[in-house]
Amino acid sequence: MLTFVLIHGAWHDGSCWSEVAAHLRNGGHVVHAPTIAGNGRNADRRVNHAACTKSIVDFIVSHDLGDVILVGHSYGGTIIAKVAEAEPQRLRRLVFFNAFVLNDGQCLFDETPQNVEHTERGAKASGDDTFLPPFDMVRDVFFNTVSREDARRFYGNWTPQPIQPFRDKLDLKKFFRLELPKSYLHATEDVRVPMPERSWHPRFSNRLQRFRYVAMPGDHEAMYTNPALLTQKLVEAGRD
Amino acid sequence: MLTFVLIHGAWHDGSCWSEVAAHLRNGGHVVHAPTIAGNGRNADRRVNHAACTKSIVDFIVSHDLGDVILVGHSYGGTIIAKVAEAEPQRLRRLVFFNAFVLNDGQCLFDETPQNVEHTERGAKASGDDTFLPPFDMVRDVFFNTVSREDARRFYGNWTPQPIQPFRDKLDLKKFFRLELPKSYLHATEDVRVPMPERSWHPRFSNRLQRFRYVAMPGDHEAMYTNPALLTQKLVEAGRD
Amino acid sequence: MLTFVLIHGAWHDGSCWSEVAAHLRNGGHVVHAPTIAGNGRNADRRVNHAACTKSIVDFIVSHDLGDVILVGHSYGGTIIAKVAEAEPQRLRRLVFFNAFVLNDGQCLFDETPQNVEHTERGAKASGDDTFLPPFDMVRDVFFNTVSREDARRFYGNWTPQPIQPFRDKLDLKKFFRLELPKSYLHATEDVRVPMPERSWHPRFSNRLQRFRYVAMPGDHEAMYTNPALLTQKLVEAGRD
Repeated sequence: MLTFVLIHGAWHDGSCWSEVAAHLRNGGHVVHAPTIAGNGRNADRRVNHAACTKSIVDFIVSHDLGDVILVGHSYGGTIIAKVAEAEPQRLRRLVFFNAFVLNDGQCLFDETPQNVEHTERGAKASGDDTFLPPFDMVRDVFFNTVSREDARRFYGNWTPQPIQPFRDKLDLKKFFRLELPKSYLHATEDVRVPMPERSWHPRFSNRLQRFRYVAMPGDHEAMYTNPALLTQKLVEAGRD
Repeated sequence: MLTFVLIHGAWHDGSCWSEVAAHLRNGGHVVHAPTIAGNGRNADRRVNHAACTKSIVDFIVSHDLGDVILVGHSYGGTIIAKVAEAEPQRLRRLVFFNAFVLNDGQCLFDETPQNVEHTERGAKASGDDTFLPPFDMVRDVFFNTVSREDARRFYGNWTPQPIQPFRDKLDLKKFFRLELPKSYLHATEDVRVPMPERSWHPRFSNRLQRFRYVAMPGDHEAMYTNPALLTQKLVEAGRD
Repeated sequence: MLTFVLIHGAWHDGSCWSEVAAHLRNGGHVVHAPTIAGNGRNADRRVNHAACTKSIVDFIVSHDLGDVILVGHSYGGTIIAKVAEAEPQRLRRLVFFNAFVLNDGQCLFDETPQNVEHTERGAKASGDDTFLPPFDMVRDVFFNTVSREDARRFYGNWTPQPIQPFRDKLDLKKFFRLELPKSYLHATEDVRVPMPERSWHPRFSNRLQRFRYVAMPGDHEAMYTNPALLTQKLVEAGRD
């Protein structure tokens, strides 16, 4: 049985994994789904990427977790890479689920140039340097496999995302030297738009050098739109 | 419940959708499947792209259709783009199903350079500027998921295609300014040969800017080779 | 009913097809699964590509086989291309299953530059110019859809691969002029790492010019990891 630590993406918090976590626990696995600093309801949104990483490192250390399968979704991929640098000996495998794998020295915005302008405009207007895209901007792109009603219900869980972590350039030299096993879990119906190249795989997966590739049909929000299948694939991605 | 107007591709006519239309109607949807001018049996084949577009615009206007989910398959993608320019207020969403999305100023031949020579040769030999590829040229490429017997039966419905619409350069400036919701439905086992890049998605889909991506296993002729699954995916692509 | 000759890839021998062959025979097909010279247990490993090809040509001729569906997996793709040059009139169709399709004048190493150094190092150390990658190098990359226990069991069938056939430049001019029908069977969860482009399809498939594309979920070792589905897809790829 495996110990999963599930790290959500932007606009999400740890509660996005509730159905997946229930399935995993039914399968006998141990599951933690902490919320990154600055995310979730009523959070202090004045965070940078280092503070976000530290919140997850602190969670893992304070719970004294070991042999962890550390899963990062989307933006969460940038977090687990830095967590792995801090606490490699507590980890058994990294799983990137439709997640960013940044090159050394990059920030997330470097990989989403098409989103910078409207995101920065929204962050400026927010008063607290956050952005929450309106539903109609994300319905077709993030929730493409479900009905509008389901999409709206799932979107209701989203909260404003602190934007400074998208601007922070990350030193990832140590990450790319780590010998940790890595998997890339790819929901194949997830397309970022515009998308000059197939973005998640192989663009990001390939940066992991040797990795285990696991694919599933599904969209970017599979923890909401198909939690049962996502659970099965997380086990296939996470096992030894 | 949705109102579908299904626009066929080259060599096809509206009857290619008969099984899909029956499934959709069973689901409570309204379905129209007009034949583009110049296509089908006993048609006057002396048409250009404008006449083809006009025939569909006339159909939609004369039936006074509104809130239309306008679906274009293959070559039909070039038709629905121009229909959308003419009657955007009657449309609810565009669905491109393994369809060409031309850039402003392009013609279909610009995107199929490998087919121009043999198609033009056939058109010249035809006497009426049409081309119908022999079965052995298309069996493996278009009907790759079914037996030879089924492929031959489906191919029996094909009729000679007027070629002038493949040569006509299209002004698509208005199309690319339309705010209409768009979906790209991708049957993933459909490959055009030779295929310097993955052609349908993301080559054409990406030109739509923001779009909903829906994928299914299947070949180019899924209205024949898997109408039940295609129906389900058309609903997923067409709904709000 | 079809006559299959199944040609294994590197590190494998004809016995890798035993479950697939049993399924095919249950379906009424005739199946041969010869071992390439230099492969398998207790083989004389001093072979070059020409000797490997000759061993399969000799098998087909000595069994007086005709109307053969000749299947090549991985490295086996380089063998069936040369066999097709030698005995085209005995073949009905070529099926490349996640197989190399080399350009005229290339050797297999030309398409796997990332593997040359460690493979040559291993070959030198072997004493007999062979290489067998350790389990941990291949578990995630070749057997990505199954458990570690299953992966280890399947890997137990692997034997050292003669490396000279990877270095031999192949004259493939005749192959690319052959009019034989060809299929490319693509197990879509098979990724070579690092993988600068999507490697099997369309990189290699596209070199076949006109071909039938058949896809299935699955990894590089589908004859072990999903023989029932592979069997079904081999029939879809091999039939007329």
